[in-house]
Amino acid sequence: MNKPLILITNDDGAEARGIQVLTKLMMQIGDVVVVAPDGPRSAQSNALTVTHPIRFNKIEEREGLVRYSCTGTPTDCVKLALNEIVVRKPDLIVSGINHGSNSAINVIYSGTMGAVLEGCENGILSIGFSICNHSYDVDFSHFESFVLQITQLALQNGLPNGTCLNVNAPCGPIEGIRISRQCDGRWVKEFEKRTDPQGRSYFWLTGYFENHEPDAEDTDEWALLKNYISIVPTKIDLTAYQSMDEISKWEF
Amino acid sequence: MNKPLILITNDDGAEARGIQVLTKLMMQIGDVVVVAPDGPRSAQSNALTVTHPIRFNKIEEREGLVRYSCTGTPTDCVKLALNEIVVRKPDLIVSGINHGSNSAINVIYSGTMGAVLEGCENGILSIGFSICNHSYDVDFSHFESFVLQITQLALQNGLPNGTCLNVNAPCGPIEGIRISRQCDGRWVKEFEKRTDPQGRSYFWLTGYFENHEPDAEDTDEWALLKNYISIVPTKIDLTAYQSMDEISKWEF
Repeated sequence: MNKPLILITNDDGAEARGIQVLTKLMMQIGDVVVVAPDGPRSAQSNALTVTHPIRFNKIEEREGLVRYSCTGTPTDCVKLALNEIVVRKPDLIVSGINHGSNSAINVIYSGTMGAVLEGCENGILSIGFSICNHSYDVDFSHFESFVLQITQLALQNGLPNGTCLNVNAPCGPIEGIRISRQCDGRWVKEFEKRTDPQGRSYFWLTGYFENHEPDAEDTDEWALLKNYISIVPTKIDLTAYQSMDEISKWEF
Repeated sequence: MNKPLILITNDDGAEARGIQVLTKLMMQIGDVVVVAPDGPRSAQSNALTVTHPIRFNKIEEREGLVRYSCTGTPTDCVKLALNEIVVRKPDLIVSGINHGSNSAINVIYSGTMGAVLEGCENGILSIGFSICNHSYDVDFSHFESFVLQITQLALQNGLPNGTCLNVNAPCGPIEGIRISRQCDGRWVKEFEKRTDPQGRSYFWLTGYFENHEPDAEDTDEWALLKNYISIVPTKIDLTAYQSMDEISKWEF
């Protein structure tokens, strides 16, 4: 049997430690093609580059691995890889390991998860991996065996069409794995106002996450807080089916 | 009773015709604050500006209307408006009218809908309006009375927590309104490869949408093709609940 073909991307850039760890792990499973941004693209969501063209460059090639950097967003990387780089449809797309969690509403802002949603949209098994620490030199070692196990189980079992996985790890010792749902909550106090030397105001995005259901034990936030890995099965169909009947009753 | 406070944004920029039309219409319903990007931000999804600060400038103020332009993305505009600009929580956020449809999978790439998801995330009634034509000078007149009607019905009826509306209009005469679901399909042949004067390749995003269920009469694509306005109730919770049990059975 042929080895699986695995496409890897991220939003922290091709040289981030998280993608290096993920590449090392995926090379134990299959042939790896990395197409990752040429620098940080955090919080790029599913953004596409439409006002200017994009490019890619091969930066490394050795047995079982080819690496490219791309001038676009994470979603651009997946699109460009599938349309112009890989010779056949990958068996798997993995994104990360992101430096910083993508739990709760962060899934909609995350470039890491943007790439995963794009892979899923193209009918490819897709998984995003993130860890609850933004540091450049975060220790991934406690997470590595879980990344391998989750990936191998996903390859064995597959996922329903239109569904991908959002996997987040705590920083400390891992108690186990919880299948979770996206926690309800929101970011508050989101800007820090400063004044430039010319006296004009400018605003840095910052803030903290306010959990609206801290006692619910089935959420990703709860799992992470209790030192579990959270796996949220995630959809690309955003339709609120349960509201269709109600809105159909409006008197248009 | 006080007039509703309505926050308007878009992804085509503060001076686009679509947002001018939407502003004119919303001023018939409430007090309007516009916080829109200072230029085009199409396909910015829920992207956030994190690597540099953002700013906003007041560009117009008159009875019932204040307009600001912002250096960030559509989602930045909503965050900045809610945190730093409006004096109270808006009763409604509307985004658009986008020049170009945001049906099917385009909902995840759209900056227009990114702003709507952001409004929804903040517990505010939020609606995105788009029309199936990218032209600068597209005629919105046949859509105007529907925009007003849909907005007024949404204000009267409200929407469930975590649900917003993605409203798309056909270009031609409108047959009516259909409550729809997000159509399954994907973009193909997504890049046009060109060669620069130095002989290096570059890639423009392009392509066409391949509808995977052209005969399904309950999709947004079907509605638009048959000259109906499509309203898709849209969720910010991306959890694939129906897959949680199955994945729980994996032998971790």
